Amino acid sequence: MPPDAQPDIQTLAIVGVGLIGGSIGLAAKRRGLARRVLGVGRQQRSLDEALAVGAIDEGFLQPKDAVPRANLVVFCTPVDLIVEQVVSLAPVCAAGTLLTDAGSTKAQIVHGIEGRLPHGVAFVGSHPLAGSEKHGPRFADAELFQGRLTLVTPTARTERRAVDRVSDFWRSLGSRVKELSPEDHDRALALTSHLPHLLASALSGVLPPELHELAATGFRDTTRVAAGDPSLWTGIFVQNRAAVLAALDMLLGRLHSFQDAIDRDDRFALDTLLAQAKRNRDALGT
Amino acid sequence: MPPDAQPDIQTLAIVGVGLIGGSIGLAAKRRGLARRVLGVGRQQRSLDEALAVGAIDEGFLQPKDAVPRANLVVFCTPVDLIVEQVVSLAPVCAAGTLLTDAGSTKAQIVHGIEGRLPHGVAFVGSHPLAGSEKHGPRFADAELFQGRLTLVTPTARTERRAVDRVSDFWRSLGSRVKELSPEDHDRALALTSHLPHLLASALSGVLPPELHELAATGFRDTTRVAAGDPSLWTGIFVQNRAAVLAALDMLLGRLHSFQDAIDRDDRFALDTLLAQAKRNRDALGT
Repeated sequence: MPPDAQPDIQTLAIVGVGLIGGSIGLAAKRRGLARRVLGVGRQQRSLDEALAVGAIDEGFLQPKDAVPRANLVVFCTPVDLIVEQVVSLAPVCAAGTLLTDAGSTKAQIVHGIEGRLPHGVAFVGSHPLAGSEKHGPRFADAELFQGRLTLVTPTARTERRAVDRVSDFWRSLGSRVKELSPEDHDRALALTSHLPHLLASALSGVLPPELHELAATGFRDTTRVAAGDPSLWTGIFVQNRAAVLAALDMLLGRLHSFQDAIDRDDRFALDTLLAQAKRNRDALGT
Repeated sequence: MPPDAQPDIQTLAIVGVGLIGGSIGLAAKRRGLARRVLGVGRQQRSLDEALAVGAIDEGFLQPKDAVPRANLVVFCTPVDLIVEQVVSLAPVCAAGTLLTDAGSTKAQIVHGIEGRLPHGVAFVGSHPLAGSEKHGPRFADAELFQGRLTLVTPTARTERRAVDRVSDFWRSLGSRVKELSPEDHDRALALTSHLPHLLASALSGVLPPELHELAATGFRDTTRVAAGDPSLWTGIFVQNRAAVLAALDMLLGRLHSFQDAIDRDDRFALDTLLAQAKRNRDALGT
């Protein structure tokens, strides 16, 4: 933002000041996007941490004390809480308030909210593809969204102006933005994010303690995301059940191809499977 | 080594100057462990790269031109070539020459060599748990073994003095050393290294090109090792067939537990599976 421009947002409220919520607050404050950033948390300790790192200007234990003052509210809470929070808080919002979220699933959230908001209050689903296995506002990073992709998931019923405002918000945090339907989002993320988490957790789970010292870089990289918060991921798997099961089926099919090839000592089949995997991985970059 | 001490090894030969072989050469030269380091490669380009980074003093396309001059020979070639190379080169070695390797499998190598060497030439199986998905001597790193673990795999028939000398060699490169039987090594590595590679490759292989842009940090971490050299890994899977299949069975069982829990919307079961995986992963550190 040029130094003489006015912040676009008078008051930004962030419900859930963890790694993502804290990073949004920090990025918004550093970039001068909001005059005031209000944080809502369930625990005073999280609010204190968010205040300490400068991610929020004021902390609230009760969403109702913060949300009515905001022009833009971002819900950064576990996916299975978002619908209820949005629907119950929308009636206390001022007319013109824009609501969005940062949840890892979209269809249940977007359709659970659609048609249930008062006139003048709009919700647009979002999912910034950023984060880490760490959690808590003390890991907040003002550059977390820089160069990353945020998926914005309107439906045919979502107001165009609200979509554009939400997209502009993520862009102003440094993110690129792509629009997808909530269903396309969920099918894609089942494969690119939820399945990797499931696999990493399955692999981590079968490692007996006596082999910990033999787990080198390869094991550590492959299981890194399994350090994520179990309850968050339970919510994600349950909300995106059908797409996750379909992705897992596809993966099981591939694992059985590996199993067959090893069982039959079929070097050609193994080479082919491994070479295709390498091409895909090389195409992603580091 | 204190500055006035003499190098322990007059001449070190490294057969296969890739990332591991090149790093051994570089580490040995930097630490003054060998008076002379000879590199053997199949391609002049690899030898030139190894010479350019200072990993070797002389390069050879024919092992027979280098190996007879060495007191210690380390085979850093693909696992399915090591037995044949060791057995065919041992007769040209001087009496007292010590042979070892850096292969990721041990039972087939160690038992394939045992009893087939001339008197006065000893082989001890080794596996340094270091490396990366990169390959080639240009990625050689003198500190690659620093603080890492090298597994040394004697059998009841391996001379104690040879085991100690090989262990001392790895320690002098900065590594810690642990002894395991070849069979225990292979069962352990099936779970800690070969299975992660298989999983990463299966996951990478099912990602359709149109979803590449949606693959963020989690997917990248989980699939990183799939960028490894397919032909090396085909050899590893084939050589460690039984243990890899057993590890894969265990993993498939765990994946089916996840599948059942998601299918039944069983949050408690999911939470339990994810929490156990997180405890294991947290115990490993970063």
